[in-house]
Amino acid sequence: MKRIAESTVRRLSVYLRYLEESSGRGLSTLSSDELAKHAGTTSAQVRKDLSFFGSFGKRGLGYSVPELTDSLREILGLARDWSVAIVGAGKIGTALAQDRGFGSRRFHVVAIYDVDPAKIGKPIGPHTVRDFARLESDSARARADIAVLVVPADSAQDAAERLAKAGYLAILNFAPVQLQCPPEVAVRSVNLALELEGLSFELTSRRR
Amino acid sequence: MKRIAESTVRRLSVYLRYLEESSGRGLSTLSSDELAKHAGTTSAQVRKDLSFFGSFGKRGLGYSVPELTDSLREILGLARDWSVAIVGAGKIGTALAQDRGFGSRRFHVVAIYDVDPAKIGKPIGPHTVRDFARLESDSARARADIAVLVVPADSAQDAAERLAKAGYLAILNFAPVQLQCPPEVAVRSVNLALELEGLSFELTSRRR
Repeated sequence: MKRIAESTVRRLSVYLRYLEESSGRGLSTLSSDELAKHAGTTSAQVRKDLSFFGSFGKRGLGYSVPELTDSLREILGLARDWSVAIVGAGKIGTALAQDRGFGSRRFHVVAIYDVDPAKIGKPIGPHTVRDFARLESDSARARADIAVLVVPADSAQDAAERLAKAGYLAILNFAPVQLQCPPEVAVRSVNLALELEGLSFELTSRRR
Repeated sequence: MKRIAESTVRRLSVYLRYLEESSGRGLSTLSSDELAKHAGTTSAQVRKDLSFFGSFGKRGLGYSVPELTDSLREILGLARDWSVAIVGAGKIGTALAQDRGFGSRRFHVVAIYDVDPAKIGKPIGPHTVRDFARLESDSARARADIAVLVVPADSAQDAAERLAKAGYLAILNFAPVQLQCPPEVAVRSVNLALELEGLSFELTSRRR
């Protein structure tokens, strides 16, 4: 399959949300114009994004809400559930471990790790913090699908390398560093400092 | 000034991190190749990104680390501090309120709001949860520069409208919805469900 850009995949998620919402409002069809308007893009972009995955919708009739919903769920891998291991039981890691599905019902936290003896063994919601030293033996038995990395910047690269060696193929990285991972490992980053700097840039540049 | 793309601003932040790190390692100059390699882009892109803001570096000599660091801090609005109000004292909001500077020293939480009487008045780190009903009167007196919105999806739009009316010009949105805000309000979104769906897409498409 052709390599699909991250920005395309993001829009597919946004289209899916709107389809689900439209279905809840009893709509059975949507036009590419409506999808585009909601997603802040153009109808040409909507058609292009979807064209990577097949032929959807009928000219003049738009998209069938249930059909396109099912197709997008399938494309995004949301026809099944995914298990998530949180690495780092700090404040954010702890909050994420207790979050119900990260706003999506398909992702389920199954484990939370830390290296701090003061945290290991402590309960967090339904979980007990596990020793990160056990990552490899745990992974040999039953590995989560996705690791969420919420460790300090200076330990993130080491932790990512251990995750990759333990067979993890997907990492959501909250540490403010660019991880160097083998090509088979998919990495997405959430960098709060970058987002805030985007806002301070906007606030500053408007005053110039 | 020409409208600068979000992706450009993100790369400026990444360049700045690397410059700061390089300065810590005692380097006084960096080439656009080195910056590009670290940021996962091309040296042509580095030069293009910087060219929006002036003329930096000397052909054959590269960029002066201290000079480019100062310039990027200035451009990104990091020559000053910014105050942040957290809206929503749930698990993630509480964790963010206690986070030291979101990985960046320029952002300081000054207030945290909630609508839940069970949360209002409770201490969170050095803060006391304030009634969101007081947003307008608080803002008339002293408004934070940036609002971080960590409320449930179905209250996010209402909260964003109140923030905009109270004069907030920058919102970092964690709620999994596309906010409709007046054009003068800068919005950045952190959507964990979208990021996880990006990973489930990758895991799924590789198996196809």
